Amino acid sequence: MEKKAKVNASILIIGNEILSGRTQDTNTSTIATWLNSIGVSVAEVRVIPDVEETIVETLNFLRSTYDYVFTTGGIGPTHDDITSESIANAFNQKYTVNSEAFKILENYYPYGEFNKGRQRMAMMPEGANLIPNPLTAAPGFYFKNIYVLPGVPVIMKQMINYVLQNIEKGEAKKIVTINTNLYESTIAEELALIQKNNPECSIGSYPYFNYTEKTGGVNIVVSSWTLEKIDHIINEIIKMISLMGGKSSIV
Amino acid sequence: MEKKAKVNASILIIGNEILSGRTQDTNTSTIATWLNSIGVSVAEVRVIPDVEETIVETLNFLRSTYDYVFTTGGIGPTHDDITSESIANAFNQKYTVNSEAFKILENYYPYGEFNKGRQRMAMMPEGANLIPNPLTAAPGFYFKNIYVLPGVPVIMKQMINYVLQNIEKGEAKKIVTINTNLYESTIAEELALIQKNNPECSIGSYPYFNYTEKTGGVNIVVSSWTLEKIDHIINEIIKMISLMGGKSSIV
Repeated sequence: MEKKAKVNASILIIGNEILSGRTQDTNTSTIATWLNSIGVSVAEVRVIPDVEETIVETLNFLRSTYDYVFTTGGIGPTHDDITSESIANAFNQKYTVNSEAFKILENYYPYGEFNKGRQRMAMMPEGANLIPNPLTAAPGFYFKNIYVLPGVPVIMKQMINYVLQNIEKGEAKKIVTINTNLYESTIAEELALIQKNNPECSIGSYPYFNYTEKTGGVNIVVSSWTLEKIDHIINEIIKMISLMGGKSSIV
Repeated sequence: MEKKAKVNASILIIGNEILSGRTQDTNTSTIATWLNSIGVSVAEVRVIPDVEETIVETLNFLRSTYDYVFTTGGIGPTHDDITSESIANAFNQKYTVNSEAFKILENYYPYGEFNKGRQRMAMMPEGANLIPNPLTAAPGFYFKNIYVLPGVPVIMKQMINYVLQNIEKGEAKKIVTINTNLYESTIAEELALIQKNNPECSIGSYPYFNYTEKTGGVNIVVSSWTLEKIDHIINEIIKMISLMGGKSSIV
């Protein structure tokens, strides 16, 4: 099997709105793309409801299994935002006002408008480190190996950059995608053989179809966390496609 | 707390391409929307890699915890498609040629083109029931409480309808969404009180922002699996918004 990355992580999406199908999660792909680009592999993603017991139990599993846990959702001002308190409970840590966060929020809101709901966003596990929010002020935080981000994608995206400066990086994954017009089932056997002969890389095969234009093909993704070079594998696949009468291009 | 649905399910997305960030998963929201519409609540979603041990372990947990498990991905013709075999192993069931699937595929491909890779798509746990695929022939299947669907969204969507005719349905969830131009933090306290007084419903609060147009607001989602009516809660929220000087509409 492909050797594992030096550093790994899991993503925990917290929110009933994803489980109901109401909201299409896009935070997973944003965070996963960023993490992979700095050599941190994403080993698992979970989506769970806004239920404290479930959050605590899942967090305790993920934080002890993976190097990092990234959560999104549940850190706003309303009653259904229970992520911060759940994290405190997962660590048996005090859930208290973070004075730095309190100041940031107090300065942000017009005088008299820093109400009780907004003050709730300054509540965090004791000892949390802030993750700045350049858009709407309310900070995320990290505590031990858990990074806590908001669920709203446009805000989350502005905060992830800061996070990535503060975590251990691995070696970036080598990755090349080859597109071909052949069907997946045409190349399946040959591709399996190439994978078998190159166990230190991972070869993924992703077909696509366009029914209106009656076209289709496969994207073949070759990746490795450990190999110095993967050119020879790429060349082997391109040669195989050509021998089977197909076209190929690196995408 | 909100009472639970009579029937629940989990979704298991199998595929390295989601964990790498390369592919944006949309199957979760498709399946979750359908399940919720027939009264089946989605309790949990997991995304895991194409690794047999992980698939077996996760399946065994999910199938014994929830009424149904829906998987997507990993049932194509290539070496990285290991979902069917993993399901057989999770149940200690024979992994063998499904003769009905074999016939469907044999008829679909032109003479001489039903190669070994394609024949692999007829391999399933012994005793699997087919889920027809009207687009590309290769069927999915269900075995005990696990429903196995392909990862390609356009194909998966064509197959989910068939599945939904064959599972136990719950009571459809009552659900109403109210939009307001007020900020989430403005209504947080009042909304928490309404939630507290109506424990049999779930009130979710989902803010949105448009930075270029400098607009924003909240969608408040009131839902219940058990209440006969939720009109009085909706009216209470609309009245609260009005008292706080905001506008509201049912969306």
